[in-house]
Amino acid sequence: MSQPEPLARLIGLLARLPGIGRRSAERIALLLVRDGPGLAGELSLALANLPARVKCCSLCGNVTLAEADPCRLCTDPRRDPHVLCVVEEADDIPLIEKAGVFHGRYHALMGRLSPMRGEGLHNTRIEGLLKRVREGGVQEVILALGTNVESDATAAFIAHELARAGLKVSRLALGIPAGSELAYSDPVTLSRAIQGRQPV
Amino acid sequence: MSQPEPLARLIGLLARLPGIGRRSAERIALLLVRDGPGLAGELSLALANLPARVKCCSLCGNVTLAEADPCRLCTDPRRDPHVLCVVEEADDIPLIEKAGVFHGRYHALMGRLSPMRGEGLHNTRIEGLLKRVREGGVQEVILALGTNVESDATAAFIAHELARAGLKVSRLALGIPAGSELAYSDPVTLSRAIQGRQPV
Repeated sequence: MSQPEPLARLIGLLARLPGIGRRSAERIALLLVRDGPGLAGELSLALANLPARVKCCSLCGNVTLAEADPCRLCTDPRRDPHVLCVVEEADDIPLIEKAGVFHGRYHALMGRLSPMRGEGLHNTRIEGLLKRVREGGVQEVILALGTNVESDATAAFIAHELARAGLKVSRLALGIPAGSELAYSDPVTLSRAIQGRQPV
Repeated sequence: MSQPEPLARLIGLLARLPGIGRRSAERIALLLVRDGPGLAGELSLALANLPARVKCCSLCGNVTLAEADPCRLCTDPRRDPHVLCVVEEADDIPLIEKAGVFHGRYHALMGRLSPMRGEGLHNTRIEGLLKRVREGGVQEVILALGTNVESDATAAFIAHELARAGLKVSRLALGIPAGSELAYSDPVTLSRAIQGRQPV
C-alpha cells in the first residue's frame, strides 16, 4: 500500500535528518497528519524563517543571528583574541562555555578528517583555521576534539601545521571523568589517566 | 550561552515530535542552519502542504489524500465490509496489508485506553467503532492490538461491548514469531504459544 505522495515526500525529507530513521520519520509524519495544521504549520513557519535569520558565524562557526556576524563570542572585547579553542562542531561551543574556564575565541571545524569517507585535507574550515592563524594575533591553540581515530588524526594534522607556524598547541587532558568511579573506566582511559597523572 | 530565538523556537518544536529528544532536536537544527536554505526550505514547504493534502480517513483513520476520503481501502468494492480489523495506529494498517491475508475493512483507534494517563473511555475513535458497528453490516471484528497492559485493557473493553452486540470477535494469535528460535522467546510468549498450540 503506497503512501499519499505529499506524505511520502515529507517522510523522505525527515529521514535525511540526523538520528531519524525511516520508521521514526513515518511516525512523525503520521503524528503531523493526525495533529492537523497546528504543529505542521508552526514547524513549517519556523523552518521557513530559519535560513534568513540564523547562520553560522563566518569566523568561528557558532550559530548566530544573521544580523550578528561575526558572532557575540568573536566580537566580545573581554575575550582574549590570542587563544583559540578548536572544536569539531558548532554545538560543542556552548558546552565549553558552560565549563566556564575558557575566555578566548573559538573555531569550529564542522567535521574532521576522514580519509576513509573521502573527507580529506580540503575541509574548508581547517584551511580557514590555518589562514586565521597565519593572519596573526593567535598565540595559543587548544584542540578540544573528540577521542577517536578520526579526531586524533585531525588533531595531529592541525597540531603539525600550527607547530610549524610557531604556536603553542595543547589538547584537552585525557583522564577519568569527574564524579565517576574507577570501576566504570575503560582500560584506555585509565592508561591515559595514569600517563597524564598530576602532582598533588 | 543562549541560542538565537528562531533556532530555539525550532528546537522546541522539533523536540515535541515523537522519538526526538532535546539533544537530537539541537543536532537537527544545527544541521539545518549549516545546510543553508536547501533542506530547511524543502521541509518547510512539505510541512506547509501537508495539512491541506493529507488527512486521516474519516472512516478507518488510514492516511489518505484529502480528496480521497473515505480512503481507497474503505471504498474498494472487492474488500469484505462485514469483517473489520481494529488496530491501534493508522500506520499499523500497511503492516497488516503487507501480511496479505486480510481482505476486510479497517478501524484505527489512534490510541488505547490508558486510565493511568487519564485517557479513559471517551476515546472518540472507540466510540466511533461502536457506532460503526451499531449501524450494521459488520459481522466480525479482529482485534489486532499490541500485547501490553493498556492494549489488553482496550481489547477487553471493546470485546465486551461488541459481544453484547452479538458480533464474532477475535484477537491475533499469541505465539513465537516466524523464523525465531525458542532460545530468544520470553517465558510469557512461550506460555501463550503452548496454551494456543495448534494441531498438526
